Amino acid sequence: MGSLGFSYDDSAPFPQTDHVDQQQFKPLDPEEFRKQAHQMVDFIADYYAKIESYPVLAQVQPGYLRTRIPQNAPYRPEPLETIFNDINRHIIPGMTHWLSPKFFAFFPATVSTAAFLGEMLCTGFNSVGFNWLSSPAVTELEMIVMDWLANMLKLPKCFTFAGSGGGVIQNTTSEAVLVTLIAARDKALERISTDDTRNLVVYCSDQTHSTFTKASKMAGIHPRNIRSIQTSIDAGFCLCPVALREAVREDVAEGLVPLYLCATVGTTSTTAVDPLEPLADVARDYGMWFHVDAAYGGSACICPEFRHYFNGVERVDSLSLSPHKWLLSYLDCCCLWVKKPELLVNSLSTNPEYLKNKLSESDSVVDYKDWQVGTGRRFKSLRLWLVLRSYGVENLQSHIRSDVRMAKKFEWLVRSDPRFEVVVPRLFALVCFRLNPDSPGRSTESLNRKLLEWVNSTGKAYLTHTIVGGVYMLRFAVGATLTEERHVIAAWELIGEGADEVLRSV
Amino acid sequence: MGSLGFSYDDSAPFPQTDHVDQQQFKPLDPEEFRKQAHQMVDFIADYYAKIESYPVLAQVQPGYLRTRIPQNAPYRPEPLETIFNDINRHIIPGMTHWLSPKFFAFFPATVSTAAFLGEMLCTGFNSVGFNWLSSPAVTELEMIVMDWLANMLKLPKCFTFAGSGGGVIQNTTSEAVLVTLIAARDKALERISTDDTRNLVVYCSDQTHSTFTKASKMAGIHPRNIRSIQTSIDAGFCLCPVALREAVREDVAEGLVPLYLCATVGTTSTTAVDPLEPLADVARDYGMWFHVDAAYGGSACICPEFRHYFNGVERVDSLSLSPHKWLLSYLDCCCLWVKKPELLVNSLSTNPEYLKNKLSESDSVVDYKDWQVGTGRRFKSLRLWLVLRSYGVENLQSHIRSDVRMAKKFEWLVRSDPRFEVVVPRLFALVCFRLNPDSPGRSTESLNRKLLEWVNSTGKAYLTHTIVGGVYMLRFAVGATLTEERHVIAAWELIGEGADEVLRSV
Repeated sequence: MGSLGFSYDDSAPFPQTDHVDQQQFKPLDPEEFRKQAHQMVDFIADYYAKIESYPVLAQVQPGYLRTRIPQNAPYRPEPLETIFNDINRHIIPGMTHWLSPKFFAFFPATVSTAAFLGEMLCTGFNSVGFNWLSSPAVTELEMIVMDWLANMLKLPKCFTFAGSGGGVIQNTTSEAVLVTLIAARDKALERISTDDTRNLVVYCSDQTHSTFTKASKMAGIHPRNIRSIQTSIDAGFCLCPVALREAVREDVAEGLVPLYLCATVGTTSTTAVDPLEPLADVARDYGMWFHVDAAYGGSACICPEFRHYFNGVERVDSLSLSPHKWLLSYLDCCCLWVKKPELLVNSLSTNPEYLKNKLSESDSVVDYKDWQVGTGRRFKSLRLWLVLRSYGVENLQSHIRSDVRMAKKFEWLVRSDPRFEVVVPRLFALVCFRLNPDSPGRSTESLNRKLLEWVNSTGKAYLTHTIVGGVYMLRFAVGATLTEERHVIAAWELIGEGADEVLRSV
Repeated sequence: MGSLGFSYDDSAPFPQTDHVDQQQFKPLDPEEFRKQAHQMVDFIADYYAKIESYPVLAQVQPGYLRTRIPQNAPYRPEPLETIFNDINRHIIPGMTHWLSPKFFAFFPATVSTAAFLGEMLCTGFNSVGFNWLSSPAVTELEMIVMDWLANMLKLPKCFTFAGSGGGVIQNTTSEAVLVTLIAARDKALERISTDDTRNLVVYCSDQTHSTFTKASKMAGIHPRNIRSIQTSIDAGFCLCPVALREAVREDVAEGLVPLYLCATVGTTSTTAVDPLEPLADVARDYGMWFHVDAAYGGSACICPEFRHYFNGVERVDSLSLSPHKWLLSYLDCCCLWVKKPELLVNSLSTNPEYLKNKLSESDSVVDYKDWQVGTGRRFKSLRLWLVLRSYGVENLQSHIRSDVRMAKKFEWLVRSDPRFEVVVPRLFALVCFRLNPDSPGRSTESLNRKLLEWVNSTGKAYLTHTIVGGVYMLRFAVGATLTEERHVIAAWELIGEGADEVLRSV
């Protein structure tokens, strides 16, 4: 044989091999798997049971771990007991415990038993669903679950597969923004018949998540063409449609091309909600792609009393929302819906020979690899599917409401203490507040920095800060899954104690 | 109060709330978690125990699932038993079983008990490690594990944190390529003092993974400036340094700017290895960023007998390798090493107020958010850490060798049957072969297509195809974790049966 120029000695017998080696190492023996995975379940359940006892913010110094861990991987295997021991001694003390009920920083990352089970299943199957054929259930369940969630949010049909659009699970908002931005970029370049990206301009507010600027730069938008419209405390830090229109008008007058508008439902600093309806008018008038980042606030819209924050959503091109932020789903899980999936596919499709198959070529199936940055993808929908089924819409709504109720409680406590003020109106489960706003002759910012440091250094609560409109404020975000009202009250008492402390020391 | 213009009625009592609601729904009760997670462990262990009994390639039609699942999420919770039942009835039959020992398609995705435990732990902690402070152990363990793996691969110190470089875990190769490409792009634009990307050119071979073209387009490289250098069967489908130099020279003569070269160690179609040393000369002479995609082949370099494929690696700028492909790590896990992390940071850094902290500002810590597309990131290193410790370098080497030995066995079987030929030399654990190369008057391609369809439709083995150098060939990739020699032999017998069948029918 060897018509293509190679020659082999076909008659040589296959060399004998060392079968001992082969038989000894079985990295996935089902019974060993069962035994060890049960041990890990107990380890994690125990961790959850005692999580309250750990300092929530890690109290270690940079480089702490390198001094405790060998410089090289072991040559021979180590038993699981040794590893568990090291996790307890070296890893847990260096962690910030995001699942602690005393975690009120950033936005908490919410979790649940159902999501954990879904993630186990996703990992366990290890199905790679880059196209339909590579594992049909991976693609089909994701399409169904994305339609389910769209319906829970009362999104119009144009965002569902039952309509003419569709949803996809990205890892994070960053990717959702990046892929839609690239689709918008390529469409705009085609429309204006150029390959020069230098005139394309994108718009956001000074409250938009920093990942928008990052994604814009990644997509080749020049930093000078990223318009961050200034917001004000008077307007609740919302993106002002009038200011936006003015900025767009100026850009157009200078020969620039408006490309993409990113609005936010629940900004990171203060959970401001940009008004979608009037922003959509501007986007339409100038032919911009309009994306809504509802990473945090969007989840609340499964409750009728919050749904009005999505008014106008039928007029946007794409919408993203991260169930890991408020729908109990563990990281990473970002849901992206688009009206015109074909625009993602136009920009992101690849079609190498080794992935070709009749179904993909006939356009009768969805190949999710063409909706995302990468090629390979996990069975991501299982996690969300298990959450939605195990809890039902009813419990998820009650979970959102419970967090909001606790935040209201905290807000009420802040307002009851004349040394404090709530700085911006609370919309969801985040309270932005500060100590001692009015006292003359003292630096409010410095006092609040001291207070924050004092509180966090106790390990009994973890809060973060922000500065908006020039005002330094503390953020108290309720949402960690294990948080109960007693934790909120204890945190408030701790803050009060801290206030006594820092006010005494000035 | 209210110095910022808001007024509240501080005297109003906090409204009484419905505490029943709050107490009923506990999505992370540790004991309920324990109970259900144990059930899931058994479900997955049982799946592994009987995985051989499932057809490896799903035998369902597009849309199969939508007819079996309700159109909306349930309002009330459903019990876990119902969900397990649905998984058995509706999900498993629609899956392609990537972990089946009869899976020989694409590159298998390798797994292990240790990696599963690591992933459980990563999920369980749900630590979000966007910067050092957000969970120090997340960042520090990743730095250490990346140095461990670098040492196992005998990478020079310039790629480690112990030296002046460093590694980071990305989700997939696509992201590793994208972030390095963007760092290279921004550096090149600065060097040539322009903001016009239209003259930047990137280089690869016609065997480079399709994600490179996709990433290039995402980063704003014009499709006409993506040079895919033609390879040939005579040169083993390697990227030819002479042809590359010629292409670069022509581009430079036309005023274009060479930006980025992507070489591959173990191409997707045939596992060709591009020669790093002479390619590095070209990259150096023209000031290009040189990246090596060793997604599949790189893992083999932990064995001394394969390490020579990395000769010249000390001269590249970045290198990526996916342990989910051959180091038993489940999806997703792509390790990226760079010589100059500061170039990633320059392009990808964000610094919003709410993430500011003293340590990040003092530059004394690594903030991995500035090394990747997104902001949030999971405790990704736990999976790899558990694999390396639980098995040791010894067993991982033996695992690589065992797969190679089985592929050699298959190669030997192919060569023993005069109806078949091995099309390209086998380097790792992939055998590219075809049926009936020489018979006059018959379409070899059509015969092999029929053979592939016949084999896959049995559900007893799953292979895929490729076309390189105009030759249609079948790919037999050994590597699924549960595959033993008996599966390889059974697959070969099935292929022989298929050959009888299709040869009879022509």
